[in-house]
Amino acid sequence: MTTMTAFDLVSADLQRARDYLQQVGEGDNPILVETIRHLFGTRGKYIRPALCLLVSRLFRPVADQQLIEFAAAMEVVHTASLVHDDTLDDASTRRGNATVNAGWNGHIAILVGDYLFAQSAIVTAGLGELRVMSMLAAMIKSMVRGELLQMETVFDWDQDEAGYDRKIGNKTAALFALCTEGAGVLSHASSEELSALRDYGYKLGLAFQIVDDILDITENEDVLGKPAGSDLAQGKVTLPVIYYLRTATPEQRALVQDSARVDEAVAAIRASAAIAQARARADTLVEEAIDALRVVPGGEARAALGDVARSVTRRTF
Amino acid sequence: MTTMTAFDLVSADLQRARDYLQQVGEGDNPILVETIRHLFGTRGKYIRPALCLLVSRLFRPVADQQLIEFAAAMEVVHTASLVHDDTLDDASTRRGNATVNAGWNGHIAILVGDYLFAQSAIVTAGLGELRVMSMLAAMIKSMVRGELLQMETVFDWDQDEAGYDRKIGNKTAALFALCTEGAGVLSHASSEELSALRDYGYKLGLAFQIVDDILDITENEDVLGKPAGSDLAQGKVTLPVIYYLRTATPEQRALVQDSARVDEAVAAIRASAAIAQARARADTLVEEAIDALRVVPGGEARAALGDVARSVTRRTF
Repeated sequence: MTTMTAFDLVSADLQRARDYLQQVGEGDNPILVETIRHLFGTRGKYIRPALCLLVSRLFRPVADQQLIEFAAAMEVVHTASLVHDDTLDDASTRRGNATVNAGWNGHIAILVGDYLFAQSAIVTAGLGELRVMSMLAAMIKSMVRGELLQMETVFDWDQDEAGYDRKIGNKTAALFALCTEGAGVLSHASSEELSALRDYGYKLGLAFQIVDDILDITENEDVLGKPAGSDLAQGKVTLPVIYYLRTATPEQRALVQDSARVDEAVAAIRASAAIAQARARADTLVEEAIDALRVVPGGEARAALGDVARSVTRRTF
Repeated sequence: MTTMTAFDLVSADLQRARDYLQQVGEGDNPILVETIRHLFGTRGKYIRPALCLLVSRLFRPVADQQLIEFAAAMEVVHTASLVHDDTLDDASTRRGNATVNAGWNGHIAILVGDYLFAQSAIVTAGLGELRVMSMLAAMIKSMVRGELLQMETVFDWDQDEAGYDRKIGNKTAALFALCTEGAGVLSHASSEELSALRDYGYKLGLAFQIVDDILDITENEDVLGKPAGSDLAQGKVTLPVIYYLRTATPEQRALVQDSARVDEAVAAIRASAAIAQARARADTLVEEAIDALRVVPGGEARAALGDVARSVTRRTF
């Protein structure tokens, strides 16, 4: 099953969340209207809102408005973090579209990110569950922590898998876990179920980021919307690189570290066992994520959460 | 009465809020610990927490822990906005201390600001009043709006007082109003009292910013911790400048707009009636702010709120 068919179960709810996103920033300062339309105008994967809605579906047949707004808020906070990340990275495109820092400028990007963080908080506070609001704020702090770890470890070729896990755990997995656990809280799940949902989301988030980092090596610019090996060029040492360096000869190691030969380094890592090893790690995480769900109500929603998880490791974009 | 003596009434509570601030970021990533200690290590005016605590004192003799935390959160969100503002302005010092963007770098400053915004939300969500949390998030959006207005109007020498009011209303007064109204909500004030507290905070915030903008012209670098006329040099058209330009000759107008002659322009504005006019506007706002308080409980706290307001227009730093 592809991600798309696994999402079919909640496609109507997902459309409601998308519609909700179209209102963000409308009627406000024209710079906000322009930049936010640009950000939400492109067809993203919406995997985070879809996860919220699938979790909700475990517990009730139709998502109520509260869940729709929570799902939308998760896409808003994700977008806020991308806008600041792209500014930090000086990235000019994302999925083929101009970033806010490139299409407008870095100052506007800082403000648009702040605005979207605040918007996610307004929507979440409006849900009436203080616990979810506290979880959101804690998750934003976690994202900052992950980004700082990343900043501190660029061009550190000796970092290990545990350090990588901490980075992507704080940056990516914490938000996935918020989506699944937060939707559980809003659905009045039991504490055992909440722990399972958090576990599922966190492990899926790790797997998702590992696959993202693999694709940066294995795919070309047409698919990525940015040059292959962008992470490597910026000194971001991802899991395939860590695995490759474990058995690299001094010459291979020198190649990976040579910023003038990124294309060659990408080709070498692509041809190595590191890609399959990283995929195997992602597969293991996905199976652990699915296994965690055994305590939540069975049925088509749980099956779809399993399908979504497996499709994450098979995606090519 | 000086601001300091007006604050005496809540000095013990204020110390508790300061102590609370010392914990922010502790135990987290070392970059966060370092930068946040730097930010809260300097003796600020703490006018925002003091306003929260004085409002609380209108309704009960000792601030409970909830009010202390709210007061601290208001200083945290203020600091978050300063960190991002200084990054946008490329400012190297604030009150004589290095800014985060200058002492560390702009990337770290973006992240530290994000972290502090999130921290203010965690503390506020923990207070158990969703309404106050929503007010905080709405206020952060307002700050962004004010900053965008400022960005859009730099070097626009034809802007009027209404535009200036919108800018400082969104940027500065909205936070003052949150401090006073939020403390009122947490003190279970009536809706009439809340409206009065909001009005008081908003008008005092406008007056406070006008005085800040006057001091940028009238004081020297020793007092300001940055060169006199910094706003003018950056093309920020503040109220004294707007008033000065109203009756300026073409030569005087050309002087104000000449970035190579900021010192001369500052001297000309200083010697003009514009300063007294701007002070008169601030005084009027302060009297309106105090007048709004007539519906809240009388006593020493209300008297102190009046003193604080009047001291704002008399401060020289």
